[in-house]
Amino acid sequence: MIVVDGLGGRPTDLDGRTCLEAADTPNLDELAEKGINGLLYPIKPGVRPGSDTAHLSIFGYDPERVYTGRGIFEALGVGMDVRDGDICFRANLATVDEDLKVIDRRAGRINEGLEEIEEAINSIKMEDIEIIYKSSVEHRGALIIRGEGLSHHVSDVDPHKPNARIEEAKPLRNDESSKRTARIVNELTRRSFETLKDLRINRKRIREGKMPANILLLRGASVKPRIKPVDELYGINGSAIAGGALYLGIARAIGLKAIKPEGATGRKDSNLIAKIDTALKELEEGKDFVFVHFKGADSCAHDRDARAKIEFIEKVDRAVSYLMENLDLKDVHICLTGDHSTPIEVGDHTADPVPIVIAGRNVVPDDVRRFDERSAMKGGLGRVSGRVLPILFGYCDFLKKFGA
Amino acid sequence: MIVVDGLGGRPTDLDGRTCLEAADTPNLDELAEKGINGLLYPIKPGVRPGSDTAHLSIFGYDPERVYTGRGIFEALGVGMDVRDGDICFRANLATVDEDLKVIDRRAGRINEGLEEIEEAINSIKMEDIEIIYKSSVEHRGALIIRGEGLSHHVSDVDPHKPNARIEEAKPLRNDESSKRTARIVNELTRRSFETLKDLRINRKRIREGKMPANILLLRGASVKPRIKPVDELYGINGSAIAGGALYLGIARAIGLKAIKPEGATGRKDSNLIAKIDTALKELEEGKDFVFVHFKGADSCAHDRDARAKIEFIEKVDRAVSYLMENLDLKDVHICLTGDHSTPIEVGDHTADPVPIVIAGRNVVPDDVRRFDERSAMKGGLGRVSGRVLPILFGYCDFLKKFGA
Repeated sequence: MIVVDGLGGRPTDLDGRTCLEAADTPNLDELAEKGINGLLYPIKPGVRPGSDTAHLSIFGYDPERVYTGRGIFEALGVGMDVRDGDICFRANLATVDEDLKVIDRRAGRINEGLEEIEEAINSIKMEDIEIIYKSSVEHRGALIIRGEGLSHHVSDVDPHKPNARIEEAKPLRNDESSKRTARIVNELTRRSFETLKDLRINRKRIREGKMPANILLLRGASVKPRIKPVDELYGINGSAIAGGALYLGIARAIGLKAIKPEGATGRKDSNLIAKIDTALKELEEGKDFVFVHFKGADSCAHDRDARAKIEFIEKVDRAVSYLMENLDLKDVHICLTGDHSTPIEVGDHTADPVPIVIAGRNVVPDDVRRFDERSAMKGGLGRVSGRVLPILFGYCDFLKKFGA
Repeated sequence: MIVVDGLGGRPTDLDGRTCLEAADTPNLDELAEKGINGLLYPIKPGVRPGSDTAHLSIFGYDPERVYTGRGIFEALGVGMDVRDGDICFRANLATVDEDLKVIDRRAGRINEGLEEIEEAINSIKMEDIEIIYKSSVEHRGALIIRGEGLSHHVSDVDPHKPNARIEEAKPLRNDESSKRTARIVNELTRRSFETLKDLRINRKRIREGKMPANILLLRGASVKPRIKPVDELYGINGSAIAGGALYLGIARAIGLKAIKPEGATGRKDSNLIAKIDTALKELEEGKDFVFVHFKGADSCAHDRDARAKIEFIEKVDRAVSYLMENLDLKDVHICLTGDHSTPIEVGDHTADPVPIVIAGRNVVPDDVRRFDERSAMKGGLGRVSGRVLPILFGYCDFLKKFGA
């Protein structure tokens, strides 16, 4: 299953065509011709998905029931060991002034001294709780607060914009554990500033005219969702191949082996062939299922760059060509879709449905000959709301019977 | 968003065409050509909708979760101030004999002395509770019972047919508040008869050979549903334009400003252009969204009059022409659908899906060229189950992101 992040779009000023319609995609079109097509509402019609909720839904879980926030997936995605009751956060290194006003939410995309920073934060001692921080790429990282009587119902410290003072975490429920967690988060935020501001790496960065990583901005408080893993649900074992921590984290949460191959950058320059090679290797080694995530289309669309998105889609097309050369659709099913639409003019996720195709044995092919938003309207899958994994697994004969 | 009540239908003996197919609708067809089309199941496939539940569902609420009964919407629709815990009823003035057998459920469609009747009923004192009655049009009105320890789980007094004795309200749950409310409703019914039978207006009507309004028949006990209003859900402000109290009441329940324009009769002679003019004015004054309700098609279908329904649909078509002349689809989205089907041969609501079209920016147009049940089958929206408002708001970029 290949998920092209932000794949879908709307008519652009390129003759009123969407990026997918404007792109030259002979291999995706071949897949459409061989397979069954449709339009996927990542969650359901009229819902504008986040990346996390969309993936949960595509994997067959109801995000309205299981989603508690994004931090848990970031923590799993950077390889942390998350336990029941742990409060997980996305934790960005940022630059603030002495009044705790945010100068740069990304600390100049710091890419040095991350181990020293990790060690400094992990040495913070507070009450009877444990603080565990792990950095991921550049300013990004995840943080866990571990202890008794905690809650994930607290608001973000990250103001989500520069030139604003950091927010005070507030309890979102009127109970002791939420109030206590908010207090801890606020104290931890202050302590991160005190701990980081005079750190050797930051003194060096200041001397060099760079932004110091002098505070940790927490957001997306969440706990481990109650999710049955895919091996339990379907009796299969699978792998996930992605560049971004979020996608690797969601994969781990549903019981997939998470792999970040060399050259996977999560940007448009990402090495898609390396991802396909890793996928082929996982299949060869006996995996029943491999999820591959391509991020670039979404990044280009967030930058409102139609030309770049089209080029990335054509790069995906070549990766699919490479995949089809190395697989036999008699043995393997290929499903390709997006996790949501990211239209150029919006530069953000929208609720518009995304084309989906499933090719392989057992599929009744339809008349669709092109892989794009308009052609998919006439496909045999009709409209699908999430649940791509179980639908695909139906064709793979992986599903257990419900009832007798 | 225009909802044409009872719009959908089934093949009639007019060459096997539905009323929508038989009607001449060049402007609806133009809308279909410009927009994306589909078939709407007002609630979901295999559910035969009431007007109240259909509208809740179209507005994006799950009626199985939030619907408690019709009375609350009638109360809001006649402009009453409804508080949490109030038990609301539809309250028809009717004519009964001395044995409380119903002679006319509509008290000869009484259209005089309504203030005197209102005052008389509002003067009824019972235990520690407050009785508030407000009349709407002719025999129609709404009643609120306000006090502690009440419940809406009580059955109707209205026997729903003439020549039957009034029913005794029964508790529908085995708890004290339901039992108490049933007792109060039964006593209130008797007291309404005692209060009304010798009222000046009724003595006059009897002298004139008219049906006296000598009892209040209660039905549809309900409480304020737990509904998040549209401003909270989508950050928008909107208006609703309708003739019927029910539609105005549902609109108020979801946070829309309710407007009943001059000439809105809720019948086939209703002034649709006046409604469109009011809608245009609301948009000009800065509203993000306007809901317009056209009742006539449903009334004609309840009367099993195919010719009249076709004529009303053609009147809607002219109103849509007037709307499109005064709006630019570059700036505004138009959605047109029905709240349910009312086929001529049934003369009542059925579960059949209704055509829906959405036109405006961001929509990927499909190949549909006509606005009717058969053409809509091939539309790009596919099949939709309720949730028209969030789907429309997706194209308007009004949706907040779920997740991150």
